[in-house]
Amino acid sequence: MKNPNIVILGAGYGGIMTAVKLQKSLGANDANVTLVNKHSYHYQTTWLHENAAGTLHHDRTRIQINDVVNTSKINFVQDTVTEIKPQEKRVLLENGELSYDYLVIGLGFEAATFGISGLKENAFTIGSINSARLIRQHIEYNFAKYNNEADKKQERLNIVVGGAGFTGIEFVGELANRIPELCKEYDVPREQVRIINVEAAPTALPGFDPELVEYAMNSLEARGVEFKIGAMIKEVTENKLVFEKDEQREEIETNTVVWAAGVRGNSLVEEAGFEANRGRIPVGDDLRPKGFEDVFIVGDCALIMNEETERPYPPTAQIAIQEAEHTAANLTRLIKGDSHLEPFEPDLKGTVASLGHNDAIGVIFDDKKLFGWSATAMKKIIDNRYLLKLGGIPLVLKKGKLNFFQ
Amino acid sequence: MKNPNIVILGAGYGGIMTAVKLQKSLGANDANVTLVNKHSYHYQTTWLHENAAGTLHHDRTRIQINDVVNTSKINFVQDTVTEIKPQEKRVLLENGELSYDYLVIGLGFEAATFGISGLKENAFTIGSINSARLIRQHIEYNFAKYNNEADKKQERLNIVVGGAGFTGIEFVGELANRIPELCKEYDVPREQVRIINVEAAPTALPGFDPELVEYAMNSLEARGVEFKIGAMIKEVTENKLVFEKDEQREEIETNTVVWAAGVRGNSLVEEAGFEANRGRIPVGDDLRPKGFEDVFIVGDCALIMNEETERPYPPTAQIAIQEAEHTAANLTRLIKGDSHLEPFEPDLKGTVASLGHNDAIGVIFDDKKLFGWSATAMKKIIDNRYLLKLGGIPLVLKKGKLNFFQ
Repeated sequence: MKNPNIVILGAGYGGIMTAVKLQKSLGANDANVTLVNKHSYHYQTTWLHENAAGTLHHDRTRIQINDVVNTSKINFVQDTVTEIKPQEKRVLLENGELSYDYLVIGLGFEAATFGISGLKENAFTIGSINSARLIRQHIEYNFAKYNNEADKKQERLNIVVGGAGFTGIEFVGELANRIPELCKEYDVPREQVRIINVEAAPTALPGFDPELVEYAMNSLEARGVEFKIGAMIKEVTENKLVFEKDEQREEIETNTVVWAAGVRGNSLVEEAGFEANRGRIPVGDDLRPKGFEDVFIVGDCALIMNEETERPYPPTAQIAIQEAEHTAANLTRLIKGDSHLEPFEPDLKGTVASLGHNDAIGVIFDDKKLFGWSATAMKKIIDNRYLLKLGGIPLVLKKGKLNFFQ
Repeated sequence: MKNPNIVILGAGYGGIMTAVKLQKSLGANDANVTLVNKHSYHYQTTWLHENAAGTLHHDRTRIQINDVVNTSKINFVQDTVTEIKPQEKRVLLENGELSYDYLVIGLGFEAATFGISGLKENAFTIGSINSARLIRQHIEYNFAKYNNEADKKQERLNIVVGGAGFTGIEFVGELANRIPELCKEYDVPREQVRIINVEAAPTALPGFDPELVEYAMNSLEARGVEFKIGAMIKEVTENKLVFEKDEQREEIETNTVVWAAGVRGNSLVEEAGFEANRGRIPVGDDLRPKGFEDVFIVGDCALIMNEETERPYPPTAQIAIQEAEHTAANLTRLIKGDSHLEPFEPDLKGTVASLGHNDAIGVIFDDKKLFGWSATAMKKIIDNRYLLKLGGIPLVLKKGKLNFFQ
């Protein structure tokens, strides 16, 4: 009897954790497991805003896949998925194709630009090591150019961040730390540089406790961040951004717009023919899309309803990791002949948003708010806990955030 | 009796050394000395290629003027010279004007582009802290962009240096050290990057001993530098460079052309009405231009003939410093009532060209050639000797090159 083929697409939080768990729970003769990923490395998407601001080197954020995946047990294929054909149980890659008995899709998110004019062409997004590194260099390059032009261009020093949700707030927090260093490096007066955070919703950090939101905004404003709340971005060009607030149009001259306001699931998944809802695929409590018993979806492409709030759970690393662990356990049952799958239920422990390296806000469900150092410490504990799960103590020591007293 | 006003224009090698020497040789009641400079800092032009390559931070290259000039003895005006009016004994600045009894002009060089089409608009020059810093960032930015484009653009990774004279060779030497680091930082394969040095003359390092030239080219080629010798640059655009060699036209796709092939004296000096020869002003052995007893020219704007070779001395830091010391001594004589000026005679001690941080070639006049470590060490000794002269041991310790065994 031939071993079943398990193919895992993507080595983000969901994909790599599925692989790491399967390599523990399955024996060499139970199944052939193949992990497919575009790069030779996994990266922590929740740290990318630090790489983009230039406050943390991207090598701290990425982890070579063969550092945590035992490639004598799990096949690793470095390639890009071009099409998923669930009816044929096949996956097409740029340089090959794979057939599967079980498929785990962990292809993550892409930016949702809501049809805003010029946004896709002219804004940066914080989505990968490559794009984060480019943002860092783009900002530096504009600082470097500023003093080389007889007509000083303010657009080089205005940085606009679209979205004051989780990622937007964390990114402006890092920028607030980084900009003074860049000013020193390039002989630019600090007061000349603007960091502007534009949010369409009537509040920053929608969904967060108002007391935490106020704390966050005060902390960031004290470090020079300007907020435009209730402001709809209408247009982005190469050197300006237009928004509307209180029925007034306003323009900001800027070469640097970073869009952190909307994500959707990877288009490939929708295009594969699964029933989709704004790019995410509704899955049952077994994490399988309707009608496909051999496909599991983990991470940002999966849509699960929170029955209490009647809204979908947000796409977070925390849920992706839990889905991966759950799917690995269910797959192990299936492979070992047990057709009963355990139902998935997210176990939300809390959320912490950093405000630069020395401040943060957070909430531990459902009773405790955190501010400042304790929130910063909690954030680091969460990050280190993930690394511990993924690669044990050696990985924590290599990539962990151990500077609790900085 | 009113104290005479001595105005020094520019705080490059010539200007700042004149100021430092005058602050020692003149008493507070002898003269009012005013130093004018665009920036608050002096920089070592001969180190800028390292800043441009990114192998040395520009803060090591610059020295705050008030670290070496005693501003209780010498006035410092941070401003930009816009016009010199020698007939009226006045100098116009962007934000003011000064009149003088004696003027010392040390305004340095600018790039000579010989009318090559598009060169001025599209090529970088290594002329200041600002421009060197921009080159560093421009190269990095292109590396950062490379992996973010579906269609990989080779023009982002081709770096062309115009000129294989002293500066061009020293710059490609630093690039050869730097590029492997950038490849690692931006996940770019080393073999994808080209460093191309284009020289119109029939040899690299024209004027150097052929054995030294061969050593230099071998050392650089071994580290991946390509030479196009006897190649005339015809045109530079935003993304290509065209040259002609052996009557064949060739194109190189490139976003990065660094022009290191020609300098001329600052145009302001020529425009002031002194008799000029390709931007440099012929001066007598008293370093005064014909017909102006109250003007001294030091550094790259001064043209002095080498009577042995019947060619002008090249514009080097070594000569600029000697001219400054000489002028300070002559000015001191004049101020103290002695109208006899000593004649200037350059005392050339030798030349060393670095080939990256770990190799160099040089010659000690007129008998000894240097290669490799001994040349590298000699280069550092020359640099440190200058700092010692300028600001004593504290400055050597702060900015010197003390890593002899790296």
